[in-house]
Amino acid sequence: MYADRVRQPSLLDKVMTAAEAAALIEDGMTVGMSGFTRAGEAKAVPLALAERARQAPLSISLMTGASLGNDLDKQLTEAGVLARRMPFQVDATLRKAINDGRVMFIDQHLSETVEQLRNHQLKKPDIAVIEAVAITEQGHIVPTTSVGNSASFAIFAERVIVEINLAHNPNLQGLHDIYIPTYRPTRTPIPLTRVDDRIGSTAIPIPAEKIVAIVVNDQPDSPSTVLPPDVETQAIADHLIAFFQREVDAGRMSNSLGPLQAGIGSIANAVMCGLIHSPFENLSMYSEVLQDSTFDLFDAGKLAFASGSSITLSARRNADVFGNLERYKERLVLRPQEISNHPEVVRRLGIIGINTALEFDLYGNVNSTHVGGTRMMNGIGGSGDFARNAHLAIFVTKSIAKGGAVSSVVPMVSHVDHSEHDVDILVTEQGLADLRGLAPRERARAVIDNCVHPDFRGPLGDYFERACARGGHTPHILREALQWHINLEETGRMLAG
Amino acid sequence: MYADRVRQPSLLDKVMTAAEAAALIEDGMTVGMSGFTRAGEAKAVPLALAERARQAPLSISLMTGASLGNDLDKQLTEAGVLARRMPFQVDATLRKAINDGRVMFIDQHLSETVEQLRNHQLKKPDIAVIEAVAITEQGHIVPTTSVGNSASFAIFAERVIVEINLAHNPNLQGLHDIYIPTYRPTRTPIPLTRVDDRIGSTAIPIPAEKIVAIVVNDQPDSPSTVLPPDVETQAIADHLIAFFQREVDAGRMSNSLGPLQAGIGSIANAVMCGLIHSPFENLSMYSEVLQDSTFDLFDAGKLAFASGSSITLSARRNADVFGNLERYKERLVLRPQEISNHPEVVRRLGIIGINTALEFDLYGNVNSTHVGGTRMMNGIGGSGDFARNAHLAIFVTKSIAKGGAVSSVVPMVSHVDHSEHDVDILVTEQGLADLRGLAPRERARAVIDNCVHPDFRGPLGDYFERACARGGHTPHILREALQWHINLEETGRMLAG
Repeated sequence: MYADRVRQPSLLDKVMTAAEAAALIEDGMTVGMSGFTRAGEAKAVPLALAERARQAPLSISLMTGASLGNDLDKQLTEAGVLARRMPFQVDATLRKAINDGRVMFIDQHLSETVEQLRNHQLKKPDIAVIEAVAITEQGHIVPTTSVGNSASFAIFAERVIVEINLAHNPNLQGLHDIYIPTYRPTRTPIPLTRVDDRIGSTAIPIPAEKIVAIVVNDQPDSPSTVLPPDVETQAIADHLIAFFQREVDAGRMSNSLGPLQAGIGSIANAVMCGLIHSPFENLSMYSEVLQDSTFDLFDAGKLAFASGSSITLSARRNADVFGNLERYKERLVLRPQEISNHPEVVRRLGIIGINTALEFDLYGNVNSTHVGGTRMMNGIGGSGDFARNAHLAIFVTKSIAKGGAVSSVVPMVSHVDHSEHDVDILVTEQGLADLRGLAPRERARAVIDNCVHPDFRGPLGDYFERACARGGHTPHILREALQWHINLEETGRMLAG
Repeated sequence: MYADRVRQPSLLDKVMTAAEAAALIEDGMTVGMSGFTRAGEAKAVPLALAERARQAPLSISLMTGASLGNDLDKQLTEAGVLARRMPFQVDATLRKAINDGRVMFIDQHLSETVEQLRNHQLKKPDIAVIEAVAITEQGHIVPTTSVGNSASFAIFAERVIVEINLAHNPNLQGLHDIYIPTYRPTRTPIPLTRVDDRIGSTAIPIPAEKIVAIVVNDQPDSPSTVLPPDVETQAIADHLIAFFQREVDAGRMSNSLGPLQAGIGSIANAVMCGLIHSPFENLSMYSEVLQDSTFDLFDAGKLAFASGSSITLSARRNADVFGNLERYKERLVLRPQEISNHPEVVRRLGIIGINTALEFDLYGNVNSTHVGGTRMMNGIGGSGDFARNAHLAIFVTKSIAKGGAVSSVVPMVSHVDHSEHDVDILVTEQGLADLRGLAPRERARAVIDNCVHPDFRGPLGDYFERACARGGHTPHILREALQWHINLEETGRMLAG
């Protein structure tokens, strides 16, 4: 049943149950697991670990690529397994534990986790748990629907547990490109100069003897929960496409734009879908997660190539894409997130980065993570990796939330993830503000005129005018700067009355 | 008198007075001038331009490498010449005009200005004014004590004015390494893998016919105003050196540390001076500005090589270093600031970045630029270029200012330039907080325990405890978060009573 998936015969006697494998994980260990945007996470061992912890409490420091599917973070949190967690998550139960201070969450730029491990800035994983479609004849690990941090976790850990997942199409083999930067002080440039370059190996090269357990399962990835485009997200897409057209007309971009990156979620997905009916051709993606829209763009003949670190699809597209993988395989590559998000590569390729803001302020500072300045939503993810070095750093959001109680455009953001220096373009359904080359007072005018919902435009303009009267390069009235957030906390609405 | 400096004979008839050259600059133009950290700026033409504007008003958009010396920004501001200014400045008169909203200042990561010009995101200079020690036989420009953005300004501008400055040692020729990234979509890796690599040319290669004017002058650079180490800066240096020693002992760094970057100013200079009496050997620098401490380290036999974008010395060291340049020349290189600060290179080399914070908060967010959240001090400079991608992102500051009225460690910074994600180590004279791998609540504890002045430790700890009781990944009390800044604004002290 799995002999064709475990091709190094000496490893066949390492096959065991998930519970047996989970027993190799000890209290206090640092564990590195596969999984990125709910794709390709190890599934059986973490569940068995949660089960075991319910009987005999233990806790670990868990690092992954990004978010996990199959409610794993929920299960692990409820079982008290997570003492520390990095670098990203999207689970409601874990989120609550983080915000209660029960789980120490280290929110990181997604390109940096393995770099910090490599430099001994973080404790290396004692053990890695990696989902695979196969183990090669050499004992190398073939990942599934994500690469994430799996390669470096397997390389750094002394012991590796492999979950062979029979639910994945074995034809995934060949899709991955595993490149690991060399060590300093003799580190060489990352030799990637085109989105379709292949610079590494198709499997994770580790000594076969590090594989101490193999668990076989067939639990599929969780489908993505992306919402279809609505009137507002369509308007955001339209504003952005009109802007791209102006850039092309002005000779600043070609008709194939630049390599596109789109953050996870419904708005970014809707923007990408909007490109299906755009005049742009021969598009390419150099992104973290490839969502439904990637394959919709392939099917529409718009997309030439897509590079990512994971593939996360809705139930609608999942069977079709993975059941017909040969249709796309030559135009796809999955890389370690260190490479998909690497500042060196992002700057070299000139990426157009499109990410979702929780809120932004008058001057273009962006909050991607903290509700009310205090409560973690998901994490910064790759947004900073891309925004800092992108050709165009674009942030999108609907202008209001909570039925109009909340403005996504505020006098001062309650938390800064991306400073004014890193933000070029802001888009809401109201319009687009092009902040390039503008001083703060000019940025504020562009934001007020283009992005704010009409219900908040007057009050925001009033704040700005009164702040300007007090002076400063970046005018503010400190006594009022956070008042909208305080109002929201106290009354449920940003504006009084 | 200057024939040996203008070696392309056809250019000799372009020699003219500064006033004649300044007349080539028209109202409304965008002008790119040499100059980085008060080193190597064009001196005569901007003064002549200011003089002219006092008679016949005109205004321009001025971009430089970084700050200018010789009171040029003051003169230009007073003459009303500056409509727009980027990407950095340190002048009190200009600062006031910026904060009054009279000059539009675009505060940029110093590695990004020419990248944005190259990508047509900013308007290219109509004319460039570049200080040189010589023009070569090929008509190429040999810069003086800084490279900054000079090379790209000269390449992008249609017309170039060269100021031959006879005050500079002609032996500066050969010190510079001019590398310009290739254009996308065929951009290749920057082939720099060691701090002492030379990857470009020793002069700025432009067609000789672009040089429309040559002005000869002999006004020296302004000396740096760096203050000697004091008790607090010595304590900061001591904490940092003890930390480096622990890193070496733990096997995380070699005894030659990593390539060092130090921001401009007295504190960073003092830290570098502290290395003279440290046990570390064979040090190297990959920095923006090379200050007195660089040459003190050379003289002490501690420093093997220094790469920068400018050399800015005190009156004490200036004559000695430039009068004996051959003593250092083989161990020095000056690069375009795009390359000295390039994210690709910073990450590859594993730089130890030491920059000065104006203030930082409980969670390690750093304000480098805005007093009271509104008033621009100098600009972000290269601190973001280095901090984001450094092996160690270190920020230093004295724990108090204004005779104890101000704490540099606050509940929430009034402006964020570097978010918690980009800050590894914080140091004041009180001690050092190592924030690597810590969650926000742990970071706060490390900051309170190690960095805060005793006068503020109680109040800050009290704020943190009460914020934690309200919950959140990054606990805050929004009603109080900015209160210390408000108190300062209203009473001149951060703490009441």
